[in-house]
Formats: sequence, C-alpha cells, structure tokens
Amino acid sequence: MKPSIPKGTRDFSPVEVAKRNYIFSTIKKEFETYGFQPIETPSFENSSTLMGKYGEEGDRLIFKILNSGDYMRSLEKDFNYFHIYQKSAFFFFDKLINRAKNLRKVTPQPSKEEILFTLESDFDGYPSKKKSVPKSFIEIHNYYDVFIDHLKDKKSIFIPLVYSNVFLDNDKEKFQFKTFLYHEFKFNVINKITPKISEKALRYDLTVPFARYVVQHQNDITFPFKRYQMQPVWRADRPQKGRFREFYQCDADVVGSKSLWQEVEFVQLYDTVFTKLGLKKTIIKLNNRKILSGIAEVIDAKDKLIDFTVALDKLDKIGAEGVTNEMIAKGISEEAIEKVKPLFDFTGDNQEKLEQLRGMLSSSEEGLQGIDELQFVVGQIDKLGLQSSELEIDVTLARGLNYYTGAIFEVKANEVSIGSIGGGGRYDDLTGIFGLKNISGIGISFGLDRIYLVLEELDLFQRVDLPKPKVMFVNFGEKEALYSMQAMKELRSNDVKSELYPDTAKMKKQMNYANKRKIEFVVLVGDQEVTSNSYTLKNMSTGEQTNCNLRTLVRLLSKN
Amino acid sequence: MKPSIPKGTRDFSPVEVAKRNYIFSTIKKEFETYGFQPIETPSFENSSTLMGKYGEEGDRLIFKILNSGDYMRSLEKDFNYFHIYQKSAFFFFDKLINRAKNLRKVTPQPSKEEILFTLESDFDGYPSKKKSVPKSFIEIHNYYDVFIDHLKDKKSIFIPLVYSNVFLDNDKEKFQFKTFLYHEFKFNVINKITPKISEKALRYDLTVPFARYVVQHQNDITFPFKRYQMQPVWRADRPQKGRFREFYQCDADVVGSKSLWQEVEFVQLYDTVFTKLGLKKTIIKLNNRKILSGIAEVIDAKDKLIDFTVALDKLDKIGAEGVTNEMIAKGISEEAIEKVKPLFDFTGDNQEKLEQLRGMLSSSEEGLQGIDELQFVVGQIDKLGLQSSELEIDVTLARGLNYYTGAIFEVKANEVSIGSIGGGGRYDDLTGIFGLKNISGIGISFGLDRIYLVLEELDLFQRVDLPKPKVMFVNFGEKEALYSMQAMKELRSNDVKSELYPDTAKMKKQMNYANKRKIEFVVLVGDQEVTSNSYTLKNMSTGEQTNCNLRTLVRLLSKN
Repeated sequence: MKPSIPKGTRDFSPVEVAKRNYIFSTIKKEFETYGFQPIETPSFENSSTLMGKYGEEGDRLIFKILNSGDYMRSLEKDFNYFHIYQKSAFFFFDKLINRAKNLRKVTPQPSKEEILFTLESDFDGYPSKKKSVPKSFIEIHNYYDVFIDHLKDKKSIFIPLVYSNVFLDNDKEKFQFKTFLYHEFKFNVINKITPKISEKALRYDLTVPFARYVVQHQNDITFPFKRYQMQPVWRADRPQKGRFREFYQCDADVVGSKSLWQEVEFVQLYDTVFTKLGLKKTIIKLNNRKILSGIAEVIDAKDKLIDFTVALDKLDKIGAEGVTNEMIAKGISEEAIEKVKPLFDFTGDNQEKLEQLRGMLSSSEEGLQGIDELQFVVGQIDKLGLQSSELEIDVTLARGLNYYTGAIFEVKANEVSIGSIGGGGRYDDLTGIFGLKNISGIGISFGLDRIYLVLEELDLFQRVDLPKPKVMFVNFGEKEALYSMQAMKELRSNDVKSELYPDTAKMKKQMNYANKRKIEFVVLVGDQEVTSNSYTLKNMSTGEQTNCNLRTLVRLLSKN
Repeated sequence: MKPSIPKGTRDFSPVEVAKRNYIFSTIKKEFETYGFQPIETPSFENSSTLMGKYGEEGDRLIFKILNSGDYMRSLEKDFNYFHIYQKSAFFFFDKLINRAKNLRKVTPQPSKEEILFTLESDFDGYPSKKKSVPKSFIEIHNYYDVFIDHLKDKKSIFIPLVYSNVFLDNDKEKFQFKTFLYHEFKFNVINKITPKISEKALRYDLTVPFARYVVQHQNDITFPFKRYQMQPVWRADRPQKGRFREFYQCDADVVGSKSLWQEVEFVQLYDTVFTKLGLKKTIIKLNNRKILSGIAEVIDAKDKLIDFTVALDKLDKIGAEGVTNEMIAKGISEEAIEKVKPLFDFTGDNQEKLEQLRGMLSSSEEGLQGIDELQFVVGQIDKLGLQSSELEIDVTLARGLNYYTGAIFEVKANEVSIGSIGGGGRYDDLTGIFGLKNISGIGISFGLDRIYLVLEELDLFQRVDLPKPKVMFVNFGEKEALYSMQAMKELRSNDVKSELYPDTAKMKKQMNYANKRKIEFVVLVGDQEVTSNSYTLKNMSTGEQTNCNLRTLVRLLSKN
C-alpha cells in the first residue's frame, strides 16, 4: 500500500519550498524594514486559550490533541453517563412519539396547554421560557436556537421533539427531526467529554495566540508593540482548491496605539510588498466599521447590515434595480434604501466618494467619525503616493464585522481573479479576552497560498534562485574525486553551490543526473586534468568546454 | 487568571527569534552550498505512517490528534467492552485474592500443579505455556514479559495475579502488583480505543516522514537525492532543562548511494557550519556499526554489546580495572576482555587507533570492513583538512545502534559540556518500512536548542542583527509626521529599518521608547526642520546631533 498524507495537507518539493521561501522572505524583509519584530508561539496552546474565541463553528474546526498517557481515567463517569443517557434518550423518543400520536388522534390540533399537560403528566421536561409553539418542521428549524437552549438543560431535550411529533405531518420529517435532535444531543455530550480527554489544541490562527502572548509577557514588552509572525495554522475545514487544513499565515500587528498613521503605514506596506513581488495595480480596498454602523443607523436596520452590504456588492452584476429588489426582499424598507441611494451610483475617486458619504451619513455621529478616519488615511496616502497599488474606498467591504472596530482592509490582485490575497483591520480590544483591557490593535495578513497561485499564473517566479548546485563534478574514481573535492572546498568557501556525483558511475548516468537537476555547469576531472593540475569546465546549456586552473574555475563560477 | 502555554512548549521573543534564525540560516546556507535541497512535510501524518516506527516507548510519546466531528460513533462498542471488562477484572482480582489466601491456609507452599488446579476448577484462565512459578514479587517482575503475553490474551490476565497472591508476602506488594497488572491491562484497552478516535498524529522526527516522502514521490525524485529539512517535531516527553515537547530538527540526508564520499562530506559540513558559528575545536566523533559488530563477534557476546560500550566509555573515570570489573559483572568473560585489551589503552591519532583495531578484529570480516570504511573517511579528511573541528575515532560511540548500519557520527562542543550538539549515521534500508527496498541512506542532524545554549554561554551571538529599527522618527504632530513619513519612504526603499513613533506623545515618552528598544538613531523633526527642509539626526549612544538634508540622512543611515 502506497504511503499517503492526511487530506488537506501537502508535501512541498524543493522547487515549491524555494518559491514559497521567496514570498516569505520578501514579506519578512519589508516587515522588518517597517520596524516590526518577529515572535513565535507554540504550535499547540491550552484548549482554554483557543476554545470559544472563534464562535461555535470555529470550536468545531479546531484540531484537538489527545491527552497522552491514560486519558480514560477522568472519563469513566462520563462514559456511563453517555450510555445511560443515550439509551434513555431513544427510549423516551419512542415513548413520546407514541404519546404524541395518541394525543393527536384525540385532538387533531392540540393547544400548547394540552401538549404541555401531556408532558407534565409524567416527567418534568418543562420548557423554562414559554415560546410560541412551532407549526411545522421548517418552523421548528427556525426555532433551532430555542431547542438548543433546551438541549443545554438535559431534561428538556424532549420538548421540541414532542412538539414536532404533534405538528410534523409525515414520518420522513419526523425521522429527520429526530436525527437532527439526537445529533445535537450527542454533540452536547461530546462537548462534555472532549475537554476531559484533550487539553491542548493546534493553533487556529495567529491573532489569538498573539493576544495571549501580549498579556502573558506584558511586563517585558515595550508598547506600542509592532510584531510580525509567520507560522502555520491548522483548521479541520473541508479541504477545497486553495483551502488546506495546514497553511501559513503572515501577520503584522501593532498593539498599544490608536494612531491612524498605522493605517497609513499598512497601506504602504501592502504596496511595497506587492510591488517587490512584481504584482501591478494591486487593489487595496479600504472601509471603516464606523461607516457601516453609520449606514445601519441611517437605514435603521442594524441587524440587516450584512444583507445590505451583500446586496450592494452585486451592483455591477444585477444593477441598481436588482439590488433594490433584493434589499426589499430582505426586509429593508424603501424609505431606508432611498436614504442611501448615493451608494447605488458610488463612482468617482476616493475624495468624491467621501463627499457623497458625508452628505449621506450627516445624521450619524459614528458614521461621520468613520469618514474622518478614512479621510485622514486617504489624504496622507495621496500626499505620500504609492508605488504600484491603488487605494480604493469600498463601503461593501464588511469582513470581520464582528471584531473590527475601525479600518477594514482587503487586497485583490488586479490581473488574476482569485479572491482576496490579504486583509486586516483595527480591533479596539484584542487583549480584553485575556484580561488586559483597552489595548487597541491593528493588523494585516498576507495570504501566502493565494499569492503563490497568483505569482505562478503570472509567471513571476523566474527570479527565484532554485535550490540546486551551480556545478557538479563528475566522479571518475577515487584519485579524481579527491582532486575534485579539493576544488569544491575552495568553491564552497566562495559560496558556490557545488556537488560531487557520489559514485564512480557511467559517464552517461552522471550526465543524466546533471541534466535532470538542470545543473548549469559540470566539471570533468580525468587523469589528464589531475596531472596537468587543471579542470575542464563544461557549460551544460551551450556545451562549450574550458580547461582552466583552480583560480580561474573559482572566478568563472563565482561571477553571475 | 494569567494566560499560559502548555508545559514543554515555548514562546520566542523577538531577540530569541533573531538568534535562532541566525543559527537556522547559517546551517541552511551550508546545506545548500553542499548541494542539499529543501523539502517540507505536513506537521501531522496518518497515524499508520508513524506508529510502530519508534518502538513502544516512541508510540507512547507521539502526540495524537483527536478525530474531528463525531469521533464517538465508531467507539460505542469499545466503551461497553471497556467497562464490562474493567468491572469483571476487579471482581476477579478480589475473588482470586481470597481463593489464593484460602489455598495458602491449606497448603502454605502449594505446588504449581496445586495452583493450576485451583484455577482450572472454575474458569479457563489456563496459562498457554507452562512457566516455572515465580518465588517473589521481584521474580514476578523478572517474568514481566510472560505476564504481558498473558495480558494480550484477555482471560489469562488473572494467572500472574494468583501466583502473586500465593507467593507475595505482604499486602503492600500485593497492592503494587495488582495496580501494576491493572494498568498493563487498561493500557491494552486504550491501545484498542485510541486508533479509533485518533487517525492523525504530530510528526515525531523528520526521518520517518522523509522516508515516507521518498517512497510516495519516488517517480519525481532524481537519485541520489540530497535533501535537507528544518521543521519542528513534537514528543510527549517529560520536559526537562534543554528537553522540550516542541523543538526543531535540522536534518540533511542523502538517499540512493552507498558512496563513502558522503561520510567525508558530512564531516566537512559539520566542520564548516560550526566554524561559521564561531565554535572552536568542535569534536566530531566517528564510529562504524560494523566495528561494533566486529567487537561483539570477537568477545562472542552480541547481546552484551551495549553493556560493553557503556563500560568502556567509563575508562577515563574508573580506569582499566574498574572497566574490567564492570564487564565481568555484566557477564563478559575474562578471555573475551583479554581479546580486546587494546581498547583499554586506546590512544594515539586516528591512524594508530585503526592499526590497533585491525590487529584486534583480524578474525572478524565485518569488523575489518568497518575498519576499511573508517580508514577511507579518516584518510580523505586528513588530505582535505578541516577548518576548526577535530575528527576523532571513538569505538564507544553506539548511538542509534538499532538502525545505523555503517558510519555513526556524534558531535561535541569543546568549550561547553552539554552533551552532543549533532549526530547521525548511515542506515542501509531507510525506505524499506514503506516498501521501497535497497535504498541506502546517510544523514546528520544539528541540535538547534543545544547549539543555542552553547553560543549563548560563549557569547557568540554579538554578530546577530537584532530585529529593531535603525532609526526612529519622533512624532511632533501631523505636519511633522507627514514630513517624516516622506523621509522614511526614502530610507525604507534604501533598506534602512525605519519607524515613526505613532502618537504625538511627550518627548520624554518617545525617547524612553527609543531607549528601551535600544534604537541607535533618532530623527527630530520640528517646525524648524520642516521649514528649512532638513532633518536633525541624533546618535543615541553619543548624544551627538547633526542637522542635514534628506540625501545626507539617507547616506548616514545606509552606511554601517
């Protein structure tokens, strides 16, 4: 059986490593030129550090490490609990389905009270908060979160089930719902067991470990602290093209200052790196959380902000009318849409956009503050200029809405359509989760894997110095090999990557090796060279041969 | 509660990262100069790739990753099995203890037959192979492996227990033994469950993943394949000073050639790297597995080889007589010791040592072959010369005895006593475990963490360029900041690490920051500078100030 690697992970060949390192070192160099300092954190953290920081979905996608040694010990209780509970669950499921069916025979449309009476009658699974009774499986799904509340309290897992059996109309639905509930229930139990058999987990991103680092080492850190970090992270995501279970993040953050000059510097940093990598007209999109809040305020629909931006983002696809319709469908009033009409014809340069926003959000203090912040960044960048990128205000940019509080960045390659190749923003209370309050931070990230694909597609890796020797010495025998090794010693001390073909193999075989590895030069050392104390240098592309002494050999191979 | 990291792991501060990168890049550069190519493999592999490759202890120390999602599903059977079994075990333990006690009352010294009869009488836990009955707890421990055999077969777990209860003399011993057996038993069960809830595991070293890589990509690889790899590995070891649960390995290996020139090159490689790092008189110890086999052959005690080398290694501590006594104590005959007497006065240079060995091992073909191999390596190195290290034949060197088949390397720092800072050797069938036969390999490894400690102790990190800006611009306000940013843009494009203090804070505060970060230069930009279109450069160590234009500023900060 052929060996393999886990899905979503990758081996990197020498050429791939070289290309990746070219990107890493380009980014690293600029990070340092901009005054950022490197830190590194462990690959796994205590689960308590990571869990609950990325939402329920995130918790699910975190790779957990099994405790070493006898991880069962602490568990035996839970296993029993788990089994008893699982059995009783099924037992009650069926018992209740029957009771519900009977109840239904008697009264086809029982009232909530009738149902609850039936329940109270012989066990105490009474819902804490009385919710209106759902009318169908679909509705029950809409009440999902209510049931999840119930599930938190072991007993009341059965309530929604009974509801469902009273109001679901066919067995398929009943089965689906039963399974759905059972899985929720089981997932609950797993959530209880997992922390006991696993106390460590693989890093999910670099931001939370960084926050942990800042709090843990706050006394050794000089603020404002400009740090960069380039390390792999792991996510149990479903692998897809361009999405892996192990991938690198390249982050730069500053904590301890609210200065908007940092927003300016990050725009410059993006511009510098992508210019160095040879990308042209990279688009650095800029938005501000406060402007989004302002819009929500103006259209008086905070909860519909995402629907709004998503719809607005489709402007060039479906046109103003299409967008309007979608917004209305999402329950945004026509009056509200009227107020933000300018966004439907949101053209012109950044200054013009800012003017339009200023008029539109005049009633929102927060919105106006967001505009001032954008104004500052855009204004300074206008004066400082960019090398090859373009800074573009985009009010549909809503990434990281739940934690960014100020600037929001997203970078798009101009010549290749591949989604964002970078992003970031300002978060006002990063370290709060670990008890260090009021430390404002701002950071950006480079998407290595996507940048790689872009450079590959635009054939921008030519400049990369591939990991192969500059010269190979053919091996004709012990005496000649020793003579070659003496030259190689000299070459290597002059940083010329050199290699001796290890075995005294057939000439053809040795040349094949040199060709396959695309080695530029080969040195032939036979009896004649040894006696005449010379070397025959062969250029593998031109085929031309030169016989020369060691000093010349070193000179020829050191240059270029 | 203050956040923390798992024991055995480390955060690395900017200075630590810089120092570590200095070591990494020094090693990396020489790896490439010697013609090695980088590869990278995933942090976690399929458990099947790793388990069983490092011995039972190794399997225990491998970090296992919990399957994501509903990892319980496949398990329910096992849990039940586990519980029933655990209960019944305890039940029988006690039942048997009593029966054994009674048996003892009747016949104080029961014969084996009597015991077995008592056992047969009401359950079938009959020992498959009849072993002599141990006479004490200690003896029982000596029969450990017999009991473990029993444990493999569920039923017979009780046999050794009964023995113990018949022949153990006090309750403490009984309790110890009961616990000891119970844990063995439980561990067996865990071994059944773990593979079901965990199918991936963190890399334990770089060698097995490399072997897996070679086999998996054999068709894309040009042999001989010279690869290097620098990545972290993870071990659930008990953390100690200098031993961590996450640490880097830096390996270079060649597969696909038996040429002894590679042994020669690895000696040179060690010499080059440690010379570059500033270490003097590094001792590169060299041995050959075939010589050790030769010795074992001559003393006619293959199984006592380790005892022999361990004892011999103590020569300078306990002297020839002490060593002899220890060897005799270990059961090596005096005649045997007589045959290898030369090793007790094993002085002189490598050539002299080889002569002595040649006489001593004349009767062992394998031994002589090992000597020829050493002869070749030592001979070529003599002709090529080393820069600062010393190559030393050491026949007590017995690392990796179970997989190395030829050369064995170990490197010791000369000025600091800290154990080996590198090691390696030749293994004749690395990829065999994955089904690719007859690929000989040889490799060495650099011990990053120990090298770090050595350089620290010898204060050899001065040359390291710490990750801090060369110059900080003081921030006096928006106009001045913009003027500063214009200069910084120029400086950064000339690779001068530059930073603007982000906030318009008190002069004192900004200077404190510069001092704490040990920033060499500060640029003062006030109203005056802006109007006169100049910059005031302050040298923070001398305190001297220069007012100059941008071109001069760039020149002053670019040089040195």
